Amino acid sequence: MDGYVLTHKIPTHKDFLDTADFDQSEMLDIINTAMIVRDFIKSGGYLNAMFHKSLAMIFEQKSTRTRVSFEVAMEQLGGHALNLAPGAIQLGKHETIEDTAKVLGRMCDMLMSRVDRHESIEALAKYSAVPVINGMSDRVHPTQGVGDMITIFDHWPAGKNPQDVKVVFVGDATQVCNTLCEMTTKMGMNFVHYGPEGHKISDEWLNIGQRNVSQYGGSCMWSDDPKCLEGADFIYTDVWYGLYDKETPKEVYMAEFYPKYQVNDELMTATVNPNCKFMHCLPASRNEEVTDSVLDGPNSVAFDEAENRLTAQRGLVLYFGKVAQLTLDYIKQQKEGK
Amino acid sequence: MDGYVLTHKIPTHKDFLDTADFDQSEMLDIINTAMIVRDFIKSGGYLNAMFHKSLAMIFEQKSTRTRVSFEVAMEQLGGHALNLAPGAIQLGKHETIEDTAKVLGRMCDMLMSRVDRHESIEALAKYSAVPVINGMSDRVHPTQGVGDMITIFDHWPAGKNPQDVKVVFVGDATQVCNTLCEMTTKMGMNFVHYGPEGHKISDEWLNIGQRNVSQYGGSCMWSDDPKCLEGADFIYTDVWYGLYDKETPKEVYMAEFYPKYQVNDELMTATVNPNCKFMHCLPASRNEEVTDSVLDGPNSVAFDEAENRLTAQRGLVLYFGKVAQLTLDYIKQQKEGK
Amino acid sequence: MDGYVLTHKIPTHKDFLDTADFDQSEMLDIINTAMIVRDFIKSGGYLNAMFHKSLAMIFEQKSTRTRVSFEVAMEQLGGHALNLAPGAIQLGKHETIEDTAKVLGRMCDMLMSRVDRHESIEALAKYSAVPVINGMSDRVHPTQGVGDMITIFDHWPAGKNPQDVKVVFVGDATQVCNTLCEMTTKMGMNFVHYGPEGHKISDEWLNIGQRNVSQYGGSCMWSDDPKCLEGADFIYTDVWYGLYDKETPKEVYMAEFYPKYQVNDELMTATVNPNCKFMHCLPASRNEEVTDSVLDGPNSVAFDEAENRLTAQRGLVLYFGKVAQLTLDYIKQQKEGK
Repeated sequence: MDGYVLTHKIPTHKDFLDTADFDQSEMLDIINTAMIVRDFIKSGGYLNAMFHKSLAMIFEQKSTRTRVSFEVAMEQLGGHALNLAPGAIQLGKHETIEDTAKVLGRMCDMLMSRVDRHESIEALAKYSAVPVINGMSDRVHPTQGVGDMITIFDHWPAGKNPQDVKVVFVGDATQVCNTLCEMTTKMGMNFVHYGPEGHKISDEWLNIGQRNVSQYGGSCMWSDDPKCLEGADFIYTDVWYGLYDKETPKEVYMAEFYPKYQVNDELMTATVNPNCKFMHCLPASRNEEVTDSVLDGPNSVAFDEAENRLTAQRGLVLYFGKVAQLTLDYIKQQKEGK
Repeated sequence: MDGYVLTHKIPTHKDFLDTADFDQSEMLDIINTAMIVRDFIKSGGYLNAMFHKSLAMIFEQKSTRTRVSFEVAMEQLGGHALNLAPGAIQLGKHETIEDTAKVLGRMCDMLMSRVDRHESIEALAKYSAVPVINGMSDRVHPTQGVGDMITIFDHWPAGKNPQDVKVVFVGDATQVCNTLCEMTTKMGMNFVHYGPEGHKISDEWLNIGQRNVSQYGGSCMWSDDPKCLEGADFIYTDVWYGLYDKETPKEVYMAEFYPKYQVNDELMTATVNPNCKFMHCLPASRNEEVTDSVLDGPNSVAFDEAENRLTAQRGLVLYFGKVAQLTLDYIKQQKEGK
Repeated sequence: MDGYVLTHKIPTHKDFLDTADFDQSEMLDIINTAMIVRDFIKSGGYLNAMFHKSLAMIFEQKSTRTRVSFEVAMEQLGGHALNLAPGAIQLGKHETIEDTAKVLGRMCDMLMSRVDRHESIEALAKYSAVPVINGMSDRVHPTQGVGDMITIFDHWPAGKNPQDVKVVFVGDATQVCNTLCEMTTKMGMNFVHYGPEGHKISDEWLNIGQRNVSQYGGSCMWSDDPKCLEGADFIYTDVWYGLYDKETPKEVYMAEFYPKYQVNDELMTATVNPNCKFMHCLPASRNEEVTDSVLDGPNSVAFDEAENRLTAQRGLVLYFGKVAQLTLDYIKQQKEGK
C-alpha cells in the first residue's frame, strides 16, 4: 500500500464522534493510514508527526484499552497524552462542558473523551477549537469500530468479496454492536445481530445499516434464530452486563442470554465454517458470554483485536491531526531510501 | 522583543512561591520570556530546553488548568510532568513534607505543588534541592498572576501609561485577588478590590500593594462603593464559593455578594468604559458571580487568560530551570537564520 | 568501568520478579549498567535507548518512590511510563490477570507492577509477551534491592573485602529484609536480621541466604541479641507498621519493637563502628523505628539510597529491554569522542 493517496486530504468533519458521519472512502483513508503506519513501526521505523503535541484524554468511566492505546500511540508519534481520570474533571459539574471544551482547546492539540452520555461528546466537539475523538459513549464506540475493521481485514477470508463476508454479533446490542453494524455494512459486508428480541439492535441502527446496504451492497438484519449463524466468517460478542455501576443485576441478564447466546464450541460449530474467527472487544467475563475454549482457541483473534486498538488510534490521531498524508509520504520516502 | 536580555541572569530566589518575593524587573524577565516563547511556538518553532527533564506536580486539591498547562508546557519544552494527583502523595501523612521534598528533589528536576496551606509549599521549598513552584496555596496564586499580567499586556489600552490603567477585582478577596493586587501595583497600575467589607482584602495585602505604589506609582485600595468601578480598564472576578469541600454554604455567600457584586451588563456599564475587558481565572459559576452575557460577550478575555496559563508556565519553567536566556538566544538565532 | 562487557548478553529470565532468580554475575551486570548510566547522565549525557518505548506501571498499592523513579527513568531514556494508579486496573476483578497481561503485552514494551500478592506478578509475567518487573510484592522488593546494593557499593568501607562487610537489618522482617538478605549474601557479605523472634526472617529466606553463603562466602543469620550489631558497616531499617490498610494496630507493633529495636544513637554506638552507615527504604515513621538524630545524622545515606531507586530503575529497564550492552558501548564511544 506504499504510496497510498488519501481520498479526502482534509477530514470532512473536524471531529470523530461516530463512524456514521463518514463515507466509505474516508473510513478507508483512516484504516489504510493506520495499517501502513503499523507496518512501518513494526519494522523498526520511527515517526514524529505529533512531535510536542498534546492529546487530553477525559474519562467519565474507567478504561484500560482506550487509555493505554491512545497514550502509547501519542508516545510513538512523538507527542504526549494527558490522562484526566474519572473524577479529575467532572464534565458539567464545577464548570460547564462548554467552558471545559473551550479551555482545553486553548491548551491542547486534540481531545479524546469517554463519556456517559453521547450529548457530552457532542458538546465537547461543538465548543472545542481542536479535534475531538469519541472514546466511547452510550451510543457508539467508533475507535473500537476502526480497530475491529482492521482486524477483519487482517483475517479476511481468502478470495472473498465483501458481499460474501458475514459478521454476526451475538448477545446484547451494546454500543459496540451499533458501531459494528455501521462499519461492516459501510464496507459492503453482511451484518447480523443475533440476540434476544428484548435486546435487539434498534430500528435506528438497522436503518442506518440498510442505508449503507443500498449504497455499498451486503445486508443487515436482526435474528434470534440460530440458523442465522450459518456461514458466518466472524462471530463477535461483548459482555452482557458489568460495564456500569448501576445496572440490571447479573441474574436478570444471565436468564435472558444464557445458555442460548453464549459463544461456546457448539455455537461456533453452528456457523458450519471451521475457519470462522472469534472477536471480542474485551474485557471478557470468561465462561459467561464466551467460554475459555473459544476465547483461547485457535480461531480467536480477540487479542489481535486488542492490539489493533493501538493501530486504530495512531491512524485516527494522524488523520484528525491533519498529518496523515505527510506521514504516508514520509514512510514511502524512508522505504525507498533503504 | 527578539534579543531580549534578562536583567537577572540567575533567579534571585531558587523557588517561585509568591510574586511579592520578586521585584518588577525580575517579573518582567519572566513575563517577557513567556511571551517571546509563546510567539515562537505559535509560529511553528520547536524548543527542547527542558529535554529529558522531569517536573513533579503534587496536588493536594483537584486542578484542571494548572495541571494541564504545566503538563503541556513540559511536553512542548522537551520534558515531562508527573501528575501526583490528590491522594497519590498525602503531604505530611505517611511521610513528613521534609522527607518527601528531599526524595523528590533527588529524582526530579523541579517541583510544582498546589497545597492546602501555604506553610506546606514553604516546607517543600526549604527541603527540596530543586526549584519549587507554587501552583496555588491558601495565600496566593502566583502562576495565575503571571498569566493574568500577560493577558493584561495582550489587551493593554492603547497609548496608556501603567499609571493610567485601572484594574478592579470584584467579589471575594481570594488568593487570586491577593496576587492580582500585588502584580498590578508592582507594574505601576491602579488596583481596586470592590467587595463587601466582610470579605475585604486584608490589610497585609493592601500594605504590600502600598509599598509597590510608593516604588512604582499607581494606587491600591478597597471599596464597597460602586463608584470605584468608573474608569476601569479591566474587571476581574472569581467564584464566591465552591472551591473547597468544607466551606460556608452557598446561601450565605449568595446573600452577601448577590446581586451587588455580580458582574453583569449593568456592572460593566458602570465602568463608563465601553472597552473595559472582563477577566476570570475560571472555572466560573455562570450566572452567579458573572452572567453569560459578560463571560461570553465581546469584551471577555477570560479564555485568552486561560490560554495564558500555558504561556506563563513555559516562562516559569524556563526561568527557574535557569535556561531562559539560553532559550531567548536560541529563538533569536532561529529567527535570524530564516 | 567504561568498556564494561556484560557477562550475560541476554537476560537469563525474561522477567525481573525476584533477585533470587539471578546469579551474582548477572546482578553485577545490572548494577554496573546502572552505575555507568548514572555517571553518564550526571555528567550531562543524554540517552535515547528506550526511544518511543512505553512502560505500563500497574499499582495495586500507592507508591511514591517506585512510581516517580520509573517515570523519570523512562523519560531520561527517551521513552514513557504510563501510570495505572490503584483502582485504574483492578487485577483479576473485571478481567482475569491473564487477559490483562496479554492485552498490555500487545500494546506496551514492558510492564512493572506493585502487587498485593506475589502470585499476581507471577501471573502477569507468565501471560505477558513482554518483560515484567516486580515493583514490590508481599514476598520481595527486588528493585529496592538493586538500589540498595548500589548504595552499599557507593559507601563501601575502604579496603574491605565483601567477606569482611557486615549488614544488619533491624526490626520487622519485611519484603525489604528478605531481598536485602538475598542480595548481600549473593555478593558474599555478612547479613544479620536483628529483630524479635516473633518477627524473625523466615527459614526459607535464611536457607536462600545460606545457599548464597556456600557459593560466595560471607554469612547469614538471625539474632535478637544486641551483640550482633558489633562491627556492622551498615544498619538498615524499615517501618514497623503502616504499609497496609488492614493490619495489626500500632500499639501492638510498638510493644514488640520499642525501644529495643529503634535505631537511635545508642543502637548506632553499639556497632562500635563510628563509620557505620544508616540505611532506610523510606518512607520513615520518624522517632518510631528511627530517630531524627540518626536519619538526619552524618552517617545517614538514606536519601542517597532514595536517589539510587532511580539509578536502579534505569539499569533494570535497559537490561530487561535488551539494550544494556548497546547503551554501554554508546557511552564509551561518547566519552572517547570527547
